[in-house]
Amino acid sequence: MATFLRASSRLRPLSRLPAIRPITTTTKPAASVAAAKVPEQTVSEELYFPNEPLKPTVRTAIPGPISKRAIEDLDKVFDTRSLNMMANYQNSFGNYIADPDGNVLLDVYAQIASIPVGYCNPALLAAATSPEMASAIINRPALGNFPQHDWANILRSGPLKIAPKGLDQVFTAMAGSDANEVAYKAAFMWKRRQERGGPDVEFSTDEISSAMNNQSPGSPHMSILSFKSAFHGRLFGSLSTTRSKPIHKLDIPAFDWPQASFPHLKYPLAEHATENAKEEARCLAETEDLIKNFHNPVAAVVVEPIQSEGGDNHASPAFFRGLREITRRHNVLLIVDEVQTGVGATGKFWAHEHWNMDDPPDMVTFSKKAQTAGYYYGNMDLRPNKPYRQFNTWMGDPARTILFKAIIHEIERLNLVENTANVGEHLYSGLERLAQQYPNEIQNLRGQGQGTFLAWDSPRRDDFLKRAKGLGVNIGGSGERAVRLRPMLIFQKHHADILLEATEKLISS
Amino acid sequence: MATFLRASSRLRPLSRLPAIRPITTTTKPAASVAAAKVPEQTVSEELYFPNEPLKPTVRTAIPGPISKRAIEDLDKVFDTRSLNMMANYQNSFGNYIADPDGNVLLDVYAQIASIPVGYCNPALLAAATSPEMASAIINRPALGNFPQHDWANILRSGPLKIAPKGLDQVFTAMAGSDANEVAYKAAFMWKRRQERGGPDVEFSTDEISSAMNNQSPGSPHMSILSFKSAFHGRLFGSLSTTRSKPIHKLDIPAFDWPQASFPHLKYPLAEHATENAKEEARCLAETEDLIKNFHNPVAAVVVEPIQSEGGDNHASPAFFRGLREITRRHNVLLIVDEVQTGVGATGKFWAHEHWNMDDPPDMVTFSKKAQTAGYYYGNMDLRPNKPYRQFNTWMGDPARTILFKAIIHEIERLNLVENTANVGEHLYSGLERLAQQYPNEIQNLRGQGQGTFLAWDSPRRDDFLKRAKGLGVNIGGSGERAVRLRPMLIFQKHHADILLEATEKLISS
Repeated sequence: MATFLRASSRLRPLSRLPAIRPITTTTKPAASVAAAKVPEQTVSEELYFPNEPLKPTVRTAIPGPISKRAIEDLDKVFDTRSLNMMANYQNSFGNYIADPDGNVLLDVYAQIASIPVGYCNPALLAAATSPEMASAIINRPALGNFPQHDWANILRSGPLKIAPKGLDQVFTAMAGSDANEVAYKAAFMWKRRQERGGPDVEFSTDEISSAMNNQSPGSPHMSILSFKSAFHGRLFGSLSTTRSKPIHKLDIPAFDWPQASFPHLKYPLAEHATENAKEEARCLAETEDLIKNFHNPVAAVVVEPIQSEGGDNHASPAFFRGLREITRRHNVLLIVDEVQTGVGATGKFWAHEHWNMDDPPDMVTFSKKAQTAGYYYGNMDLRPNKPYRQFNTWMGDPARTILFKAIIHEIERLNLVENTANVGEHLYSGLERLAQQYPNEIQNLRGQGQGTFLAWDSPRRDDFLKRAKGLGVNIGGSGERAVRLRPMLIFQKHHADILLEATEKLISS
Repeated sequence: MATFLRASSRLRPLSRLPAIRPITTTTKPAASVAAAKVPEQTVSEELYFPNEPLKPTVRTAIPGPISKRAIEDLDKVFDTRSLNMMANYQNSFGNYIADPDGNVLLDVYAQIASIPVGYCNPALLAAATSPEMASAIINRPALGNFPQHDWANILRSGPLKIAPKGLDQVFTAMAGSDANEVAYKAAFMWKRRQERGGPDVEFSTDEISSAMNNQSPGSPHMSILSFKSAFHGRLFGSLSTTRSKPIHKLDIPAFDWPQASFPHLKYPLAEHATENAKEEARCLAETEDLIKNFHNPVAAVVVEPIQSEGGDNHASPAFFRGLREITRRHNVLLIVDEVQTGVGATGKFWAHEHWNMDDPPDMVTFSKKAQTAGYYYGNMDLRPNKPYRQFNTWMGDPARTILFKAIIHEIERLNLVENTANVGEHLYSGLERLAQQYPNEIQNLRGQGQGTFLAWDSPRRDDFLKRAKGLGVNIGGSGERAVRLRPMLIFQKHHADILLEATEKLISS
């Protein structure tokens, strides 16, 4: 614990955190092409973590000897074949992740896009050590039966405070996969209720008996439509809508549900406007055709604003507005999966705000940076017609919801969504310049205007990611070829410059 | 927070908790039939919570006026139709749950069997306010990629310390539903690997392409066999094995998986030994027949040691040994779902220890009283042949696993499994006497020798449960007619006497 205490002793308590110190950063990667042409990179910034390391420290090959022994030991009880890096979180701080060998890396992967406001964030530490949190940890309720007296208040000052426009209800869950599945269940119940003739029509005896046998009509042959390359989770229902990689799906029984093509846009977008519009029209037509004709009727369409695990695939606001129009017209629900895109990373709190829709999605699911999970909805018809239809023991976790409340407060206090929009522009400009100089190394650069939610395709992606660690940067990939950037919301221009410098070193050698 | 501080100020810090004070309880329900004939009920007990209330306090009808307003307010943002009782956990202590109106009830439902060692338990409070916990709350890792350096240690001193015999590996999850689903996924991967010819045989191109379309052979038509009245969760895969009530299943698409009959035993067991043995043989034969002949081949059988949600249905150790024998012989895995029965409540740490099997189950799933979730296994063949096949972002929650570690420590420190076995005998004896006097009110009393995991059928169950609150006891039901007792592990003889006295009042009026 000594290391944690050292780390946390650097943290200033919340009550002493009002002022952000404006400091001129000392990081001046003057040799960098990306940076050399950017006068504004020597920025005078307000530092969110004044005591954050100024730059990465790489002491050993990664994994170093201590990590190697720890990995070997862990593997005896826990599968470590997907292990990327052994971490020491008590020594991690802000944007920097530490390992047991004393390496400290700038982290632009952030636990697969799930750390919102920095490691050992002092404001979150205050929330985590509050009496409210202690009670939530040790007195975990069955929320549907025995909610705590302040649950409405936690919801209102937490997840509902930043609920997407038009959606004022929340159903809480544990992680992205089950958040999507409870949304799917709500969609099926809603659709069947309509077919049945309304909320007051009772289930038939045939429905009741067939449901107990997993047969229709009680367990109906209905479906959720998703898109090729989509990722919506890995439990049985969510995995049936996931179409990312065979390794995610092989050997697991799946529902016979339809998939539509997701647009393959060409970059730079400005140079391919006409053919991209045509591609999106093609995908919308295919979607509509499946909704009309697929043999297992579609109750809902689920879509990510940016297909993340599937390779960072984008579509235009017009595409999504078209999807809303089609689903509305065919009386099918639209579920927007914001598990990875939500909570600020695209420069809006919710990525679907970029679409400028008057007619909101029917449900929006969230997790990751929220550190809890669930789905939002605005239509009370999406509450099942009877109790106990949408129910489980815990129905989420107040402890994690209290943390989300603290995260929201920190985002608002430091204006982190706007920060992410601004730093994203800075980072995109630097990458665009690198792409112009190294067009083979940085292909299909995407995410302009989407905060720091940026990606490009690399001809040697896995090698790029591996060598990045040696330069002190932890980066993730997505799909087969994409380098995906998922910095935290406290990622600032001087961090972007370190990333740009490392990227240039990696692609120029 | 003032109320919490008051509650917690009653708690003695962990370091001052070594001695348990032997105290003669003052609860002497002398008017009670159950108690009057039990000289040992005036017990000299070591009190686990010396400052616990001596008895329930009922100040208002439940819900009282404050609760009613809170429920009305909560319903605006959160479906409250399944709400049983609004709680104030900061005022709850030990076996007693408080509500906002100042009512304090003896709680033998315990958040649907999920509170292990009492509300505001001082030892858990110490764990919840430790620097280790604070770091786990604010620095949540993607465990499969970036585990923390002490994860092996947390696993070994937590879930693996009390791993079922023969099972030395754990895959961590979030709650019971997903714990079962990842176990099912492991079973499907294992079975398909065998069919394919071993771990080194690569997937065929046909498997790879069909999996992406949710079609066989990549997404195989295989199944998990479960039992009628079983409950294994409510996500799409787990719900396909759940056969408890239509309301749990209606309108939700399900896999075409088989269900076998679970024994319907007659009580008292001693009087129906022959026909019960015949009934179990019939169910085993049906199970074997389905394994041999069901059109979607069976990869695993999942079973609860005691069917809990489905009405507290028991079977004999011989039945479960028979199930192990059949599954072994047909090369099908046996998954034991200990989500509700595990962690001490039956007087053994794991309920399946009652079966005295030499050949352990292939997987055992857990959640609820563990306050986290996952599945145990012992066969390294159940690790998929490639990384990223069994994976998700968080893969559990170290914060909740650290709490499980503290729960295990508390169970061992206070010898709570043995306590539960002893108190269970005391409670069962009292109930048996009541059943003899009121045979119509307490039917099919079951759970003898299974700790405090007791139940009986009541001709007016819902009324019984409702009126129990007026006498200061919070009790749950299961199935259509069962009163199910699920006290915490700190439930002692003097608590049992309060429960017996209330039960007698309820059934005699």
